[in-house]
Amino acid sequence: MIKASVIGATGYAGVELIRLLASHPKVELKNISSKSFEGEPINKIYGNLNKYSEKILTDENSALEDSDVVFASLPAGLSEEIAKKCFEKKILFIDLGADFRLSNEEDYKKWYKKDFKYHDIHKEAIYSIPEIIKYDNFYNKKDLKNAKIIGNPGCYPTSIGLALTPALVNKIIEKEDIIIDSKSGATGAGRELTLNTHFAECNEAFAPYKIAEHRHTPEIEQTLSNIYGEEIKITFVPHLLPINRGILSTIYAKLKNKNSLENIFNLYKDFYKNSKFVRILNIGNIANLKNVKYSNYCDISIHIDERTNKLIIVSAIDNMVKGAAGQAIQNMNIALGFEEDAGLNMIPPAF
Amino acid sequence: MIKASVIGATGYAGVELIRLLASHPKVELKNISSKSFEGEPINKIYGNLNKYSEKILTDENSALEDSDVVFASLPAGLSEEIAKKCFEKKILFIDLGADFRLSNEEDYKKWYKKDFKYHDIHKEAIYSIPEIIKYDNFYNKKDLKNAKIIGNPGCYPTSIGLALTPALVNKIIEKEDIIIDSKSGATGAGRELTLNTHFAECNEAFAPYKIAEHRHTPEIEQTLSNIYGEEIKITFVPHLLPINRGILSTIYAKLKNKNSLENIFNLYKDFYKNSKFVRILNIGNIANLKNVKYSNYCDISIHIDERTNKLIIVSAIDNMVKGAAGQAIQNMNIALGFEEDAGLNMIPPAF
Amino acid sequence: MIKASVIGATGYAGVELIRLLASHPKVELKNISSKSFEGEPINKIYGNLNKYSEKILTDENSALEDSDVVFASLPAGLSEEIAKKCFEKKILFIDLGADFRLSNEEDYKKWYKKDFKYHDIHKEAIYSIPEIIKYDNFYNKKDLKNAKIIGNPGCYPTSIGLALTPALVNKIIEKEDIIIDSKSGATGAGRELTLNTHFAECNEAFAPYKIAEHRHTPEIEQTLSNIYGEEIKITFVPHLLPINRGILSTIYAKLKNKNSLENIFNLYKDFYKNSKFVRILNIGNIANLKNVKYSNYCDISIHIDERTNKLIIVSAIDNMVKGAAGQAIQNMNIALGFEEDAGLNMIPPAF
Amino acid sequence: MIKASVIGATGYAGVELIRLLASHPKVELKNISSKSFEGEPINKIYGNLNKYSEKILTDENSALEDSDVVFASLPAGLSEEIAKKCFEKKILFIDLGADFRLSNEEDYKKWYKKDFKYHDIHKEAIYSIPEIIKYDNFYNKKDLKNAKIIGNPGCYPTSIGLALTPALVNKIIEKEDIIIDSKSGATGAGRELTLNTHFAECNEAFAPYKIAEHRHTPEIEQTLSNIYGEEIKITFVPHLLPINRGILSTIYAKLKNKNSLENIFNLYKDFYKNSKFVRILNIGNIANLKNVKYSNYCDISIHIDERTNKLIIVSAIDNMVKGAAGQAIQNMNIALGFEEDAGLNMIPPAF
Repeated sequence: MIKASVIGATGYAGVELIRLLASHPKVELKNISSKSFEGEPINKIYGNLNKYSEKILTDENSALEDSDVVFASLPAGLSEEIAKKCFEKKILFIDLGADFRLSNEEDYKKWYKKDFKYHDIHKEAIYSIPEIIKYDNFYNKKDLKNAKIIGNPGCYPTSIGLALTPALVNKIIEKEDIIIDSKSGATGAGRELTLNTHFAECNEAFAPYKIAEHRHTPEIEQTLSNIYGEEIKITFVPHLLPINRGILSTIYAKLKNKNSLENIFNLYKDFYKNSKFVRILNIGNIANLKNVKYSNYCDISIHIDERTNKLIIVSAIDNMVKGAAGQAIQNMNIALGFEEDAGLNMIPPAF
Repeated sequence: MIKASVIGATGYAGVELIRLLASHPKVELKNISSKSFEGEPINKIYGNLNKYSEKILTDENSALEDSDVVFASLPAGLSEEIAKKCFEKKILFIDLGADFRLSNEEDYKKWYKKDFKYHDIHKEAIYSIPEIIKYDNFYNKKDLKNAKIIGNPGCYPTSIGLALTPALVNKIIEKEDIIIDSKSGATGAGRELTLNTHFAECNEAFAPYKIAEHRHTPEIEQTLSNIYGEEIKITFVPHLLPINRGILSTIYAKLKNKNSLENIFNLYKDFYKNSKFVRILNIGNIANLKNVKYSNYCDISIHIDERTNKLIIVSAIDNMVKGAAGQAIQNMNIALGFEEDAGLNMIPPAF
Repeated sequence: MIKASVIGATGYAGVELIRLLASHPKVELKNISSKSFEGEPINKIYGNLNKYSEKILTDENSALEDSDVVFASLPAGLSEEIAKKCFEKKILFIDLGADFRLSNEEDYKKWYKKDFKYHDIHKEAIYSIPEIIKYDNFYNKKDLKNAKIIGNPGCYPTSIGLALTPALVNKIIEKEDIIIDSKSGATGAGRELTLNTHFAECNEAFAPYKIAEHRHTPEIEQTLSNIYGEEIKITFVPHLLPINRGILSTIYAKLKNKNSLENIFNLYKDFYKNSKFVRILNIGNIANLKNVKYSNYCDISIHIDERTNKLIIVSAIDNMVKGAAGQAIQNMNIALGFEEDAGLNMIPPAF
Repeated sequence: MIKASVIGATGYAGVELIRLLASHPKVELKNISSKSFEGEPINKIYGNLNKYSEKILTDENSALEDSDVVFASLPAGLSEEIAKKCFEKKILFIDLGADFRLSNEEDYKKWYKKDFKYHDIHKEAIYSIPEIIKYDNFYNKKDLKNAKIIGNPGCYPTSIGLALTPALVNKIIEKEDIIIDSKSGATGAGRELTLNTHFAECNEAFAPYKIAEHRHTPEIEQTLSNIYGEEIKITFVPHLLPINRGILSTIYAKLKNKNSLENIFNLYKDFYKNSKFVRILNIGNIANLKNVKYSNYCDISIHIDERTNKLIIVSAIDNMVKGAAGQAIQNMNIALGFEEDAGLNMIPPAF
């Protein structure tokens, strides 16, 4: 059993990590830390927890003690220092925040208004959507199996990268005019209280937010550009759904030539034939959030608008699992040589 | 007081008509009919109703008796005959179904799998989104003030036509590559029981449906083409939202030239300066379904993706009011010479 | 047209008052005030508003200027002073807060931890659920038609008082062992951000709160005791529903004797025969929140558990209308000699 | 690995069984059958499933082949025959329907309008809420470890039996005037399409149903009477919550004597000290559906209304897990000598 610790354990991604690690066959949860709730038992904050109910939240430094792997889920700028400490102590560090997602420091500065503090540490990091890492491992093309620091992708970039990669690798779509209309459940906004996520304001409501200015934009473009081999600029509009979980992205791209739905379906099916978590739906079916909730699956359905020769791709993930904690564990599994789906092979509930 | 009757009174648009007509200062509800519930009092079907609780549902023909205006909300192909009878009896007929929405019979055949039965009757009809009718009155450019038969637009076409008209009239966007990503509440699917609208399958779920093949597509394209003066083909993908009411459309179009947000905002503001129901939101605000629920408003917000030179328009309506019963009453008001907002000037609730 | 002003206009009851007053045929909205948003236009806070979009929020004192009636919706202890000023200026004052609900100062001290500051002012006040005021006007049995200060009841007490009054007046139930299990939508908790009303914590969740210790308990008991003529103690448990609006109370009482459902139904029907807002449902129907939303109705259904000889009463109101702003307007209508339902005769939507 | 089959596999309890059995360490899913979808692969009906996506739905008889245990989830009256066949073939049979829940055939006749067909088979059956079976095993007090036929309890009776047992065993409450106000999520109504569970009619709505006449009433009373040793009659009112999962019961009982909350808490804590699934919440906490979703836990909180000397017990379960499929697997685990929580030790998600 390896020992895993979680920093930022009382945020939504943190508590989801705790839940998923609890049923991992090769992991023992070691330490959990929280700035806001240091000294309190975790079940005072989360009534759903039981197995770990008496575990006390520690400070950040104590969380590293006696750990083989450390997960952190913190606001931008707060993970670098922990990454450095872990690296020095030879602890595998997996960051669910934004600090190790952008290879280009200028992009990080522009979108997150912060600098890289430890440039050496960034050179050790690997950014990984495991299914497409071979097209998108910008950090020195290191091998995930020997990773020391892993930048776990954002939820939107995961849902979009998986959806577009086969089309970009096979160059069947134009790189211009890609439109991405994404919709996310309210847990994507985290546990912080805001008017937008106040029940009576969010329920029975629906709207986009951060139109064409969401921080995940450069991360998405970085992935798509790496995959395609040329710079790609996208139009990205996220929306807030009045549900708890899930991201559904509806993606519009221009087909380079006339192409049959069957051809493209086969190409996608083939691309992901060894993937345990990406499910390409049969022609005629449409990806739906309800089929991936509480699981690490990404469901993708492929459609063509014959009248305008557009490829329409719909992808659905659980933002807290494949979009955060689940993918972090998937990355850990590969890095540590476990089965890729260890602790992640749960079937999504029907409702 | 004029006398209004409703055919198809127990469908969702029908009962919404009853509710709205009840507070119209110049209308008395006369007859209500329903094939499924003929002979029953309406409040046996709808517990919310009171004022009309003892009104008995009749058959279709009886509904015409002693009426000045008849509204029908029926499946495609069933309104033509009633329109003919009303026309002969000089009763104003307003169709909330699809029979008088498409000028081109071939389109109707292709998308609805039916023929026009009474071609003469179609020549008497007017299709009307009142705010833009002068650009889109394909039925012989008749005057709405003397209308005999009115084709009330679909919910999606209303939300989209209002959003795109100022941009198309002013020719600031390309006619190619318009992408329309719409999201509708569950009342849009009506009262018929389906697995998709079964609570446990719809709640906490989200997905598109009828991707690039929704029947409102030709109606949307007809409006946009009429406005622009050239044929326009769009890509249209509707989604089902797990809420009761509302349609929010996120529309992506390519700007012909660089243009400032302020310019376009002013152009929209000016275009709708006399409109009682279209609200152009101040720059920086985003249209949200919660602000138009239970009202006849259409909220529109304008955005530019500077990085890709796209115009992004967000429009929000209540699908049952501005998208159905409210707009039908607005059309009636104009046709009969009432104030355009008679019975429709309610403020949407905050929640 | 009389001039009405609203203090605490940006709270949920405040904005609902603004919405309802806007369609009142005899009222002009004069001033609106807000401590938190003084100096801002109301539509910056509430995007739903239009008619009053440019109205600027003032301070409390300015709100009284040039007003015939002032509504206040404020935390306990803050209304007394305003009541005093209004009384001196001969402005009708209607308090939607708790300051004029309890006749017994000891109860107020015990449950609200505050004192009455102006005892004289309390003597001028009338507490009024209009349909049952003749049984429950503890403040000197004054006539509502000449009221100067009105204590508008709490939402739970309204739903419960209306449900139990006919049974208590007719003495068909025991005064012991009355159990009241109430369920309220999330707007009942107001606009203040709390973890309980954070979307992801409230949605798909359900639980009671303040079990047997809710502040409305003494107000409910005061009403029931006044009606019955003897002291009544109840067991009251409120629950938080993951919906926006409505209070449904399920009330259990022991029948004194065997009694037929028909008898009791007739007794209720008769009791409310002149009421415009209380609807006694036909035997076999069950009160449902969906039939009263956005209206001033209180739906009541009557049931008997023959096996245990219990009377079960179900009552449903919209907590923001009959439970707050609507009832306040109903009280104003009576006090000023308007039709009781002026501005309140809207039909609830079916969905 | 033992081989388990599911009859009625496409109902909501059936598909939940499939999901849970999939992660059971000692079970292999063998056959699945469905009258409505015979011959189709299960993933055509449920898009969430993957592992078993190609499994074909069979007829009922084929489902028994090569099985060690058979679960059935069928309408009343359809399980007896299967139970008989399983018994003859020495297959453990677990019925999630109502056929083996009532010991008294008269009750079954009265509430389900059917007869027992095979009286011998009923003598072999065991009814089991495992945590309290020693007080409530009416079917000949057989040992669950050698069970051949198990009657799996209803969802409401499970939530209520667990909540009241410690109080009844310790005789601290009166047997009269027990009021049970339960609220269930919409999956409790199953997959059948009804107007009550049509999204727009169920969402933002709330009401009781089958007031004092729900079929679970005799099952609840049977359990409570068995536990107490005297006949108990209750008042039971279920409500439909607009959420997917969960049953929360608020239970009101009269304390025989004055008693301290601490005493009763300790008594409950002690009663369930060896239980893996019942969690008695610390004093001051309140059971909430959100903390038990997707798990086999039953959370119970204890409260006293000092003013009226009532004990108030709140219990929360997931109706599809502890209220159906999970408890069926728990029963199987005990009957087959597995760990009681094998396949059931998942932590509920926080949201």
